[in-house]
Amino acid sequence: MKFALMGGDGRMAQLARLLCADGHRLAVYALERAELPPECRGAVSAEDCARHADCVILPLPLSGRQGYLSTLLSAREVPLEEVFDALPRGVPVCAGRVDAAAADCAKRSGVGLIDYFEREELCVLNAAATAEGALELLIRETPRTLLGSRVLIVGYGRIGRILAARLRDMGCAVAVASRKYADAAWCRAFGLEPLDTRALEGHLRDFDMVVNTVPAPVLGEARLRELRPGALCMDLASRPGGVDFAAAAALGVHAVWALSLPGEVAPVSAGEIIRDTIYNILREQELM
Amino acid sequence: MKFALMGGDGRMAQLARLLCADGHRLAVYALERAELPPECRGAVSAEDCARHADCVILPLPLSGRQGYLSTLLSAREVPLEEVFDALPRGVPVCAGRVDAAAADCAKRSGVGLIDYFEREELCVLNAAATAEGALELLIRETPRTLLGSRVLIVGYGRIGRILAARLRDMGCAVAVASRKYADAAWCRAFGLEPLDTRALEGHLRDFDMVVNTVPAPVLGEARLRELRPGALCMDLASRPGGVDFAAAAALGVHAVWALSLPGEVAPVSAGEIIRDTIYNILREQELM
Amino acid sequence: MKFALMGGDGRMAQLARLLCADGHRLAVYALERAELPPECRGAVSAEDCARHADCVILPLPLSGRQGYLSTLLSAREVPLEEVFDALPRGVPVCAGRVDAAAADCAKRSGVGLIDYFEREELCVLNAAATAEGALELLIRETPRTLLGSRVLIVGYGRIGRILAARLRDMGCAVAVASRKYADAAWCRAFGLEPLDTRALEGHLRDFDMVVNTVPAPVLGEARLRELRPGALCMDLASRPGGVDFAAAAALGVHAVWALSLPGEVAPVSAGEIIRDTIYNILREQELM
Amino acid sequence: MKFALMGGDGRMAQLARLLCADGHRLAVYALERAELPPECRGAVSAEDCARHADCVILPLPLSGRQGYLSTLLSAREVPLEEVFDALPRGVPVCAGRVDAAAADCAKRSGVGLIDYFEREELCVLNAAATAEGALELLIRETPRTLLGSRVLIVGYGRIGRILAARLRDMGCAVAVASRKYADAAWCRAFGLEPLDTRALEGHLRDFDMVVNTVPAPVLGEARLRELRPGALCMDLASRPGGVDFAAAAALGVHAVWALSLPGEVAPVSAGEIIRDTIYNILREQELM
Repeated sequence: MKFALMGGDGRMAQLARLLCADGHRLAVYALERAELPPECRGAVSAEDCARHADCVILPLPLSGRQGYLSTLLSAREVPLEEVFDALPRGVPVCAGRVDAAAADCAKRSGVGLIDYFEREELCVLNAAATAEGALELLIRETPRTLLGSRVLIVGYGRIGRILAARLRDMGCAVAVASRKYADAAWCRAFGLEPLDTRALEGHLRDFDMVVNTVPAPVLGEARLRELRPGALCMDLASRPGGVDFAAAAALGVHAVWALSLPGEVAPVSAGEIIRDTIYNILREQELM
Repeated sequence: MKFALMGGDGRMAQLARLLCADGHRLAVYALERAELPPECRGAVSAEDCARHADCVILPLPLSGRQGYLSTLLSAREVPLEEVFDALPRGVPVCAGRVDAAAADCAKRSGVGLIDYFEREELCVLNAAATAEGALELLIRETPRTLLGSRVLIVGYGRIGRILAARLRDMGCAVAVASRKYADAAWCRAFGLEPLDTRALEGHLRDFDMVVNTVPAPVLGEARLRELRPGALCMDLASRPGGVDFAAAAALGVHAVWALSLPGEVAPVSAGEIIRDTIYNILREQELM
Repeated sequence: MKFALMGGDGRMAQLARLLCADGHRLAVYALERAELPPECRGAVSAEDCARHADCVILPLPLSGRQGYLSTLLSAREVPLEEVFDALPRGVPVCAGRVDAAAADCAKRSGVGLIDYFEREELCVLNAAATAEGALELLIRETPRTLLGSRVLIVGYGRIGRILAARLRDMGCAVAVASRKYADAAWCRAFGLEPLDTRALEGHLRDFDMVVNTVPAPVLGEARLRELRPGALCMDLASRPGGVDFAAAAALGVHAVWALSLPGEVAPVSAGEIIRDTIYNILREQELM
Repeated sequence: MKFALMGGDGRMAQLARLLCADGHRLAVYALERAELPPECRGAVSAEDCARHADCVILPLPLSGRQGYLSTLLSAREVPLEEVFDALPRGVPVCAGRVDAAAADCAKRSGVGLIDYFEREELCVLNAAATAEGALELLIRETPRTLLGSRVLIVGYGRIGRILAARLRDMGCAVAVASRKYADAAWCRAFGLEPLDTRALEGHLRDFDMVVNTVPAPVLGEARLRELRPGALCMDLASRPGGVDFAAAAALGVHAVWALSLPGEVAPVSAGEIIRDTIYNILREQELM
């Protein structure tokens, strides 16, 4: 197949290498600083790039500053409008984490975007990569072994589920805070202690580490104040996050906000995950 | 609180013992053959039983033969209509696995039933008990150790998820067949090999054991024919199940249909699961 | 190669089938009731069986009643002396669990026995099969799920190590009693609670199940008396075992003595384990 | 009790804090740069420090440059002879990783050293800390997730056993190279693929990561040459290690030598492990 890739970071570069290795033909634009195989044709414009493509792939996240394509491996500034206007009709256009402004802009250009960041299979495997990155940080940022530590994970979504299992297997005593009885049952089935997110008071001092995965203000000043001295507080939730970092700093709580872990700790795997998801999308549309 | 319990099997008896142990007052009906603590008042009729109750608990499953209360620990035949007509208004009535006929009958009597078998937390913990029962059968029914065996699990619902994790931890090489890309991603995150239920052909001969958890005809004659000699085929799906047992018999495939495992291998835990779920229901209604 | 097999139970029959399947030539004696492939030559005497063999395999255990070959699949009574006198010189003779009398007898006949039951690799894999059998019994003999149960394992040898890991993975809270600080450290490394076998008093009532693996009288009357009502006590130690069963019966403690689990729950795997061990022996002697 | 501590690194400082927290009285020497609780008496000489002590604790490792006490948290240069001559008779003297020269020196001064680094329980828990540090490095140094990676561990001693289990639980396909049939059996029992250290040729290109734990030259040029491009080679063995780093550099193999991980990634736990081991020693001598 013929793919057009534009913009993005190391994951897009990795994706380009993987697509080449799978035997596809590629045109790339706004990826000048990436080391790519010679078979990748460097295009001179978005239009040149998209011409003849069977599928267009835009980066994760789609936008850098508002209205512009994210281009971390290029000096170019590419307005999204320019990209969208260059795209051929009738060809799937995949983009990651499309914000409202970008979605509007695409609509105005008559482009239907498929947001691969909303695909469950991508989110699950990204969560697995996030859990590994979190594990690395927890080992590095604490002066104790995970073995024997008591950890509280707030939230039992994708990241919470995988991270809880990993930490339990590393020999931590793991508690999971959630609001749902069903989550509590799943926790019990997998050897985790269930707690109620609404009633953490009185429990927080039991933990050596607290990891938040919920994008809601669950760890405010009162709760941070309850943590035992030396406890680590890690936030894995996307902006606006769930930890009051200002309060943590004032209280002397060791707090870490870890964002975008998959691309950082496992860029090759992150590229593979995007590729597999794009393939699934194409298979569902019977284009592959 | 005051509870009224009517009918059911060993799990209802266990539930009665647990409620007494928690300090509640109990009236029971149609449970004559159960060994119950002396504090349990034996009622002479459904009406007598339900009188003054704060909560009525009917069994899992609710119905034995159609239109009648399930009463495995009693010689009585109790029409559901008689039960429903005896119930006081304004009191929660909990029942398990309510079939359509019973639901209609309750409606006619003006009774609103809460089906605790539809509660996710009960289903998850029941699935954990089912997985243990399945494990026991797999050890007993095969002449090999699970350690080193290759197992295919069809379906990645509640039972599939827990059983797959247990078998992996026992040292099996576990593959899971599902139709969803997201399930495949979860499988990969948890060290299980994902397969596509629609494309099992050519894979089935790789397995020493195949366990179905899907209530759909997934293992028909053609697929059973592909199994290797001596392979075990176990069905955990409720009626109508997913294995063609007639074909299995004709082909000489060792096939086992294992139903109602929680009540059989872990009646005490099964009773505790029902109790905890009833308490959750009462808490949500702010009655507890 | 040419093998001679004499006596034994289902594991020897399985071993014969496996050796045939591997392309070896076989003569068997005192295995009349076993279903064997036609290529297996049935010998008319021990001497006839052993003639031309490159390796002689005697059963596990070697002796039935004292001085006689164990022959559970034959009506013959074969004195060990007759067997030993029939064996050719210069050929490895492998036997399992050789008792002192049999060892003496072999010495008198000038036969050097290799006891494959003393090989670590066989014992480890037998321990894994034993752990599975124990797991099956624990699920079957208790009315609760293993999930959430508290289990004490006495002894951290081969069986203790594997069973403890399996039960932990099934969601039990597992404590292990041992006398060594090093065992306690291994337990901590693998998420198990270490206890001191000499100081179990005051702890025993915490457990739903107690499993002994030590061939020493560790669970006598005083300790059995401490168990909570309904607790299960399982002994996996060979004779004389470690549980006072008379005291257990008098106290109403549910006690189970499970012996010879590998041959019972996994005869095919048990045969494979013996075969692999025999091969290792032959490889070490550069005969294979 | 009264303890005297001299020299060492962060672990000795941590040990001092822990012994204080347990209510013991402490004198310290050659630890000036450590932050210690005010109850710790700073001694002016080795003799002053050891006076009245019930137990003397020297660091891990005992020696810095040959013949001198290791003193990473002090500007002092303290000859071992001076230390040994200052010690009271009849009091246990514990030291870590005592080299031959230091042992000779102690003997000449009539001091019997107890090397706590030879205690199995300390080595096991140190191995667990090493495994965590290795895990952190493997996540950080590779651009893929551990999930789905193929890892070879050379050696199945303490570190090999724990690291193999951890990586398996993280979703790696783990192979373990050893020379013993018994190790191979243990590997199979725990879901690891056994390989023969003497016959790794032809297998090495299968792995994304190779971790050596054996202090012998197992990964020389020929084997390193077989690794797949991009594979990571990590050495956890103490000097002289097991990887030919010069050859690795020449071949462009990404090789990492990770030493002293416990003190680096988990100094608090490392201190606790030493404390617990010292307590065990004192208990065995019935001094505690």
